[in-house]
Amino acid sequence: MAKPSRIASSNEITASSTRELLNQDLAKKVRTAYTRIEERGMAACLFGSQGTCCKNCNMGPCQIIDGVESMVGICGATADTVAARNFGRIVAAGTSAHTDHAREMVRGFIATAKGQTPHEIKDVAKLHKMAQLFGIATEGRDKNEIALELGERALAEFGQQDGILTMLKRAPEKQQKIWKAKGVEPRGVDREVVEMMHRTHMGVDQEYHNIMRQASRCALADGWGASMLSTELTDIMFGTPVPKRATIDLGVLREDMVNVTVHGHEPLLAESLCLAAEDEEMLALAKKAGAKGINLAGVCCTGNEILMRRGIPVAGSFIQQEMVLATGAVEAMVVDVQCVMQSVAQVVKDKHTDIITTNYRAMMPDAVHIQFDEHDSYASAKKILTHAIGNFKKRGPHYIPKDKKFDVVVGFSHETINYMLGGRFRQSYRPLNDNIINGRIRGVAAIVGCEHYKHADNVHEIIAKELIKNNVLVLATGCAAQALGRVGLMRPEAATEFAGDSLREVCETVGMPPVLHVGSCVDNSRLLIALTEMVREGGLGNDIAELPAVGTAPVWMSEKAVAIGQYFVASGAHVIFQDLPISGAKKFSEYILKGLKEEYGACWGVASEPLDIAKAMIAAIEEKREALGINKKKERVLMDMAMRREIEAGKGIGGAGCGGGKH
Amino acid sequence: MAKPSRIASSNEITASSTRELLNQDLAKKVRTAYTRIEERGMAACLFGSQGTCCKNCNMGPCQIIDGVESMVGICGATADTVAARNFGRIVAAGTSAHTDHAREMVRGFIATAKGQTPHEIKDVAKLHKMAQLFGIATEGRDKNEIALELGERALAEFGQQDGILTMLKRAPEKQQKIWKAKGVEPRGVDREVVEMMHRTHMGVDQEYHNIMRQASRCALADGWGASMLSTELTDIMFGTPVPKRATIDLGVLREDMVNVTVHGHEPLLAESLCLAAEDEEMLALAKKAGAKGINLAGVCCTGNEILMRRGIPVAGSFIQQEMVLATGAVEAMVVDVQCVMQSVAQVVKDKHTDIITTNYRAMMPDAVHIQFDEHDSYASAKKILTHAIGNFKKRGPHYIPKDKKFDVVVGFSHETINYMLGGRFRQSYRPLNDNIINGRIRGVAAIVGCEHYKHADNVHEIIAKELIKNNVLVLATGCAAQALGRVGLMRPEAATEFAGDSLREVCETVGMPPVLHVGSCVDNSRLLIALTEMVREGGLGNDIAELPAVGTAPVWMSEKAVAIGQYFVASGAHVIFQDLPISGAKKFSEYILKGLKEEYGACWGVASEPLDIAKAMIAAIEEKREALGINKKKERVLMDMAMRREIEAGKGIGGAGCGGGKH
Repeated sequence: MAKPSRIASSNEITASSTRELLNQDLAKKVRTAYTRIEERGMAACLFGSQGTCCKNCNMGPCQIIDGVESMVGICGATADTVAARNFGRIVAAGTSAHTDHAREMVRGFIATAKGQTPHEIKDVAKLHKMAQLFGIATEGRDKNEIALELGERALAEFGQQDGILTMLKRAPEKQQKIWKAKGVEPRGVDREVVEMMHRTHMGVDQEYHNIMRQASRCALADGWGASMLSTELTDIMFGTPVPKRATIDLGVLREDMVNVTVHGHEPLLAESLCLAAEDEEMLALAKKAGAKGINLAGVCCTGNEILMRRGIPVAGSFIQQEMVLATGAVEAMVVDVQCVMQSVAQVVKDKHTDIITTNYRAMMPDAVHIQFDEHDSYASAKKILTHAIGNFKKRGPHYIPKDKKFDVVVGFSHETINYMLGGRFRQSYRPLNDNIINGRIRGVAAIVGCEHYKHADNVHEIIAKELIKNNVLVLATGCAAQALGRVGLMRPEAATEFAGDSLREVCETVGMPPVLHVGSCVDNSRLLIALTEMVREGGLGNDIAELPAVGTAPVWMSEKAVAIGQYFVASGAHVIFQDLPISGAKKFSEYILKGLKEEYGACWGVASEPLDIAKAMIAAIEEKREALGINKKKERVLMDMAMRREIEAGKGIGGAGCGGGKH
Repeated sequence: MAKPSRIASSNEITASSTRELLNQDLAKKVRTAYTRIEERGMAACLFGSQGTCCKNCNMGPCQIIDGVESMVGICGATADTVAARNFGRIVAAGTSAHTDHAREMVRGFIATAKGQTPHEIKDVAKLHKMAQLFGIATEGRDKNEIALELGERALAEFGQQDGILTMLKRAPEKQQKIWKAKGVEPRGVDREVVEMMHRTHMGVDQEYHNIMRQASRCALADGWGASMLSTELTDIMFGTPVPKRATIDLGVLREDMVNVTVHGHEPLLAESLCLAAEDEEMLALAKKAGAKGINLAGVCCTGNEILMRRGIPVAGSFIQQEMVLATGAVEAMVVDVQCVMQSVAQVVKDKHTDIITTNYRAMMPDAVHIQFDEHDSYASAKKILTHAIGNFKKRGPHYIPKDKKFDVVVGFSHETINYMLGGRFRQSYRPLNDNIINGRIRGVAAIVGCEHYKHADNVHEIIAKELIKNNVLVLATGCAAQALGRVGLMRPEAATEFAGDSLREVCETVGMPPVLHVGSCVDNSRLLIALTEMVREGGLGNDIAELPAVGTAPVWMSEKAVAIGQYFVASGAHVIFQDLPISGAKKFSEYILKGLKEEYGACWGVASEPLDIAKAMIAAIEEKREALGINKKKERVLMDMAMRREIEAGKGIGGAGCGGGKH
């Protein structure tokens, strides 16, 4: 595996829509991140990049050089301590972002249960499943009554001071045992963030193994705790995603309609806008303004949320947010929290476009603020749309890239995968496990996380193509998913075009793409569930660490990505990033890239080139297959129906590393 | 007022004990922070120091130059956004440290109420006062029963998701109204930290006024919320401090005794050690080892806690922690959380001394870990002492500075001030207010916070001497208090030696020092109460902002100091630091150093030279006096008994800015 590195392959733009737009005079005038990168050059502070700049007290900033006696911190903190503290704070910040998003969703869920929103409890089966997990009675009770109790119990877990988060019970037993033994079971969501911040304060925790213990606890509070709660309650409220055809890229913007893009993360606002955009009053208003209607389109993870549940088109991913606006064809970009670049308000400065901030937690100079009120969300949504419609007539010079609108099939929630692979009458992960055991599918790879401007925009594409060529099924979330959708990998036809023979065979039989869109970045919790179901189904070992599964957030940008990575690692799933701010600390790096495996059965990996990442992922999958004993030719031949029946009966396959029965 | 600056006056050592020790061969071999500063030189990264280095996402680190178009962040974040985000995260980290300390104290309080600790409910009057505040019935109930309910209610406020923290009700009404209007009333302790971390995540809050709103909310959760809770419950459990004579500096170490130093912050451990150090079994063990007994001595804020309540000597402040060990005369340094330099374990490497870490949240390479169990704290304490006693015979070459043991009178809790000034029969702040109104005391100044190695160690001394010379009463906490004690300013005689005529007169009458030790850094909450009482007493305006009171944490080191500063500013008290990481952002600096005043009645100030800080503090006090109209000669003459009676009757003094009645 390649060593940690910060050297970007290149920040080449391969997205044809972006290139086409940037060639227009209209766009040339706009200062974008590409301009800034070019003007700044690529150099970033080495100490910061390698994790060894300490700003945690005012005796610093101390720049640490590992192994040089005089270059520890003024307080004596070593490179390992400093890098671990910085890593811990990244996890704390990422966890804070996800969990605060989750909190808002829970609050919205409670408001919905109380009938205070235009939404309703849609997925009653999931509601009952969650109620059962929380020990809430369902028998003969109204769905809203159950939902209210569930919502309040869920909200309480954010502030819980002792005990263990309920959602952890969903994990494979072996993971739960490891967490208990390591003392990393999160007690409450908020408490773990505060403790992480405290422990990384000057002169508190100065032992990197111990710091990372809290980082794991904090990250688990994110993944299995808050994020999973958020995904499930959001599904109950807005519907669990099912497969849908949709389109992606700048070309989804419409010449003849009021273009309203929604950007950010919390789907409460976007869902309300979806409802309001079909409101007769709004449509009449749009028509009066000379438009054929209102064209809602998503950006970033809000885009993913409404894409997954409603098939609303996505106009652009994180790195396209400025492009969406540079078209000059957008009446309003409605934003809430996270990953909204401050530059967007500058990009639209000479345009008719308004950036509308909607959340009290996230404001921006030169934006218009219209507070979204969760208790009166329909009215808020109409107010926002009315404002956008008002801009339509002012639309000036604009350019929407031609034919840049790519088909995708999305909506692969854990339940969808269950159904797609298992079929209507046999919903289960059995067929997936069987296909992995028989080698048609070598394993499962998650490509998640962000994009950023310092790397080429086809990193995800290169990795995904290499993986599916080698018969690895890809599950994608976040902006990574959008980058893959943009290059046509989320069409069922992509299996025929790009997948290896045996994966293609499976995809064609089922009619699914070789790259499945699983949701937003909060929805990485769906992957945890999918992995757990694979373990539970049997035949692939006793815990997540034994599964031939691996993840990557190759070009991570947000601190959330590191929190996600850490909760996957602490859950037994190997994770590979393009870089990590750890390379300035030798022992700590060794621990992160190797040592963690002894504790959790998984560790981090770093590889700077996309093809190397893909190869490392394939190698990791093959290593697991070897350990499971499912790579032996003889045994693959033996995978006939009789054998499958045996597995289903919980007997497992004879041989090393196997034998996981049904729980 | 001087501009923000990072230029240190000098890092000269004036502490005679430290100088004496560093001249010994034994100490010359030791690598200390002074060595590291010298080897590193003074340069620190300018971007980091000025608040404009952004590491909050992986597109960076971005180094921002205010006003240079290409030198905003890759995402477009401006210098103001970046500096505000960094400031917000400092507040979040500082708040986390204090509140997590407070949480442990509340948990210890609950354990005490349950009879699970060797401690007891000592201050029943304060227990009842707190119970009343929380609306807990006291009539006919056992003190432990009340304490248990109070403890559980207090713990719940850490996880509270909605509403307002109970302790806020203690603030002057006007402050409460301002907080309500600004929307900065903290809902729960932990939640505010998480939201601060979320809002400072990439692409969330990018408007510095709005970021600072959450910073205030978070800081208020620290000061009025958690810290005040901690101080009060700690007082109830271990006794509210009353005046005591004690000694400070390296000379408190004993040749003939087992020297055990306690360093860190949470007094639960130290209090247990105090009890166990008098245990017959421990004393017998010490004697058997050839020692006359066990000499407990404090370092840093743990030192302040047991100094205030038990008169246990303080061996050294933050910058002396390495010196305490360099003596070679310490058998064990027992540490818990915060401000424990990682170097301490290296300083003792060739010595018989052990660094004993005791808290699962704070470990350190090369230290011995003995976990302190709050439910079996006496046994934990005995185990720790037994270990220390075991080291006594191994004591090698050592040197305890001669006669470096300075007298102090400490224990000036808010209740003590009430009593000292008001007398036994008339406990109140009336005499203090009267003395301020009549000008004998010009005002009150708080000198709080840390020390650090990049500045001279007599900064606090210079400021304090200038203040008392100008008849300003000084209240001190934290390591600042220890620095002032070390130079003899906490003796009643210091009034005669250093105070201006009228302050001297007051101090001599009462028999108190001109510099009052109010407690540890968590105990800055005592200052909030003192200020509130001054408002409530009447005659000095309607809120804290009108009082002739000002604070400084001149050589702040810990992130806690900024959280403290922010809760004082948001409470209406002007605060001056020697530097702040804001100077790289023009508009944000302007807001911090001026704009905040319009919102809260107070703002931050920065002055790099100690004498300038003192002068700025005096100017601030005189400005308030002018506004109150108490600086006019005529009115001062009028301050006879009749006038005082009028004030007491709530009528106030006729004239600008006056008229605060009793609430």
